[in-house]
Amino acid sequence: MATIQANVLRRVADEVLQRAGVSSEHRQQQIDLLMEADLRGVSSHGLLRLERIVKRIRNGVSKPDARGRHVWRSPSFLAVDGECGLGPVVANHALEALKPKARENGVALAAITNSNHIGMLGWYAERVAQEGFTIIALSTSEALVHPWGGRIAMLGTNPVAIGIPTGGTPFMMDTATSVVSMGEIHDHANRGQAIPLGWAIDSAGNPTTDADAAKQGAIGPFGQAKGYALGLAFELIVTSLSGAAIGREVHGTLDDTSICNKGDVFILIDGPRRDLQDYLEAIRHLPPAEGFDEVLIPGERGRACRQKRLSEGIPIADEVWNRLQALAGCEATA
Amino acid sequence: MATIQANVLRRVADEVLQRAGVSSEHRQQQIDLLMEADLRGVSSHGLLRLERIVKRIRNGVSKPDARGRHVWRSPSFLAVDGECGLGPVVANHALEALKPKARENGVALAAITNSNHIGMLGWYAERVAQEGFTIIALSTSEALVHPWGGRIAMLGTNPVAIGIPTGGTPFMMDTATSVVSMGEIHDHANRGQAIPLGWAIDSAGNPTTDADAAKQGAIGPFGQAKGYALGLAFELIVTSLSGAAIGREVHGTLDDTSICNKGDVFILIDGPRRDLQDYLEAIRHLPPAEGFDEVLIPGERGRACRQKRLSEGIPIADEVWNRLQALAGCEATA
Repeated sequence: MATIQANVLRRVADEVLQRAGVSSEHRQQQIDLLMEADLRGVSSHGLLRLERIVKRIRNGVSKPDARGRHVWRSPSFLAVDGECGLGPVVANHALEALKPKARENGVALAAITNSNHIGMLGWYAERVAQEGFTIIALSTSEALVHPWGGRIAMLGTNPVAIGIPTGGTPFMMDTATSVVSMGEIHDHANRGQAIPLGWAIDSAGNPTTDADAAKQGAIGPFGQAKGYALGLAFELIVTSLSGAAIGREVHGTLDDTSICNKGDVFILIDGPRRDLQDYLEAIRHLPPAEGFDEVLIPGERGRACRQKRLSEGIPIADEVWNRLQALAGCEATA
Repeated sequence: MATIQANVLRRVADEVLQRAGVSSEHRQQQIDLLMEADLRGVSSHGLLRLERIVKRIRNGVSKPDARGRHVWRSPSFLAVDGECGLGPVVANHALEALKPKARENGVALAAITNSNHIGMLGWYAERVAQEGFTIIALSTSEALVHPWGGRIAMLGTNPVAIGIPTGGTPFMMDTATSVVSMGEIHDHANRGQAIPLGWAIDSAGNPTTDADAAKQGAIGPFGQAKGYALGLAFELIVTSLSGAAIGREVHGTLDDTSICNKGDVFILIDGPRRDLQDYLEAIRHLPPAEGFDEVLIPGERGRACRQKRLSEGIPIADEVWNRLQALAGCEATA
């Protein structure tokens, strides 16, 4: 594991995307997104993904110049054909278009299809909440999650992020509706560690503690039947409104060659803003339960990690760092 | 336990509310809501609640004629002062106002405060999804749920319902963000049964299997840290947009004398409607995992229960049935 300063990582990542023909403006958006994930301790959504992004550009399934074609189906409903653009470029462009409509009408919605992976949803949620909007962000993915009581993967990990102005630092939560990420299962497999029972089933649909077997099987929904119901509802909302592919038909966030056909939905609300800080402060200062050091507010651990990593550097797997340098043409250190 | 035909129950309930001075139109809405809960097997939200509804009218904290005062803050953002009206009357009136705005603008939102308990959210979600709308319905409640890692209740059970048109029977999920309902814990206490570890903590904030101790403590969030994050996000969205009370300041859904100061939010979307039936059918026909008879689609068990109870009658606790008859003036059978 190397520890690299953020500005060094950014420079190398920028070189990688420049070599792939990405414009300065679009490079910045893609790198901001990935770096925020690494800074907040979500390395599965960080620079680790850059090599795939480059391969997808080279293979023609990602078009780095595209920003998405906008069609207003009604004054507050934006349908976006992502035109195979980079996820954050298409998503940011849609959010910028939504903001004036949400201000005007109180609420506005974008349904996006045909864009590449939009990454860590919390990045979008926190930024627009800082500008005074409440946001619900949903995204689908390849089928990796089994229905509660089922034996095969039929649902995406279907993350949700919610951002809310509070009068101070915005509230931001961001979670997948799977009990863990597939990245976490791969990590366990790479380290030869068992996974806890309840995380996943094997390819025969039986509960397993073998991380390698889990890779061939499916992850459980978080929160059992309730989390399954929510994850399924999010998949149906996104598909219904965006026209994206659904379930096992979804491709393109985990491979280098398929057009990315999942969907994304943003609901942006410009409503009254109540000061929520006293309430959050009261939760933060509750006496912690046995086995806990403190009561956490969602998003805050990531923010603390970000502060630390901005000053101390970002831990990054040697393999990932070496690949990045090679892609940037810094072969000597690779 | 008595088993009573739905039309008999409806007649008795109607008499109860007529005696309390509720108009025919508003009686029907309140009774439809409660009966749908009993029909679908959610007796905690059924006619069991009628006595409290009557007491609250008598105590002046529920005004059965009120439908809520509507202020359009912007073309798609409806602020509703519930004027202490009956929950379903205020909620239905708000939904009717939202529908044309959602059709016109693609999405519309109502933020309601100062209405009485709006009950089982799925009742609203399924009906508007039948009319072609996608809906997200949120509601807050008294603080009964502890933050993940905390020792006291700070969050409502904060239910969420989502309804989505599918091309056939709509998809509808409806769940609290607590691991179980307080009603379920009371049921266990009444029967002298232990509760599973993980459901609740006692008044000292320690995990308990004693249902009586749990009644004095707090229920856990569903899905641990992830469910806590979602339940908290829903509480903050509702409070922020509606100006309702938050956390331990919330009163009025579990007592007879306080003005009900929780909030409710409906987001109504009129977007494209994709046929989702093949996908749901594929999930329904998956081979079930060990220990499961079938793979369920959320909402369908309730619908099957409804069919059965419409033909065979509704099981209702003797005590509840006797109280209802007494309230209706049918003292002889009470």
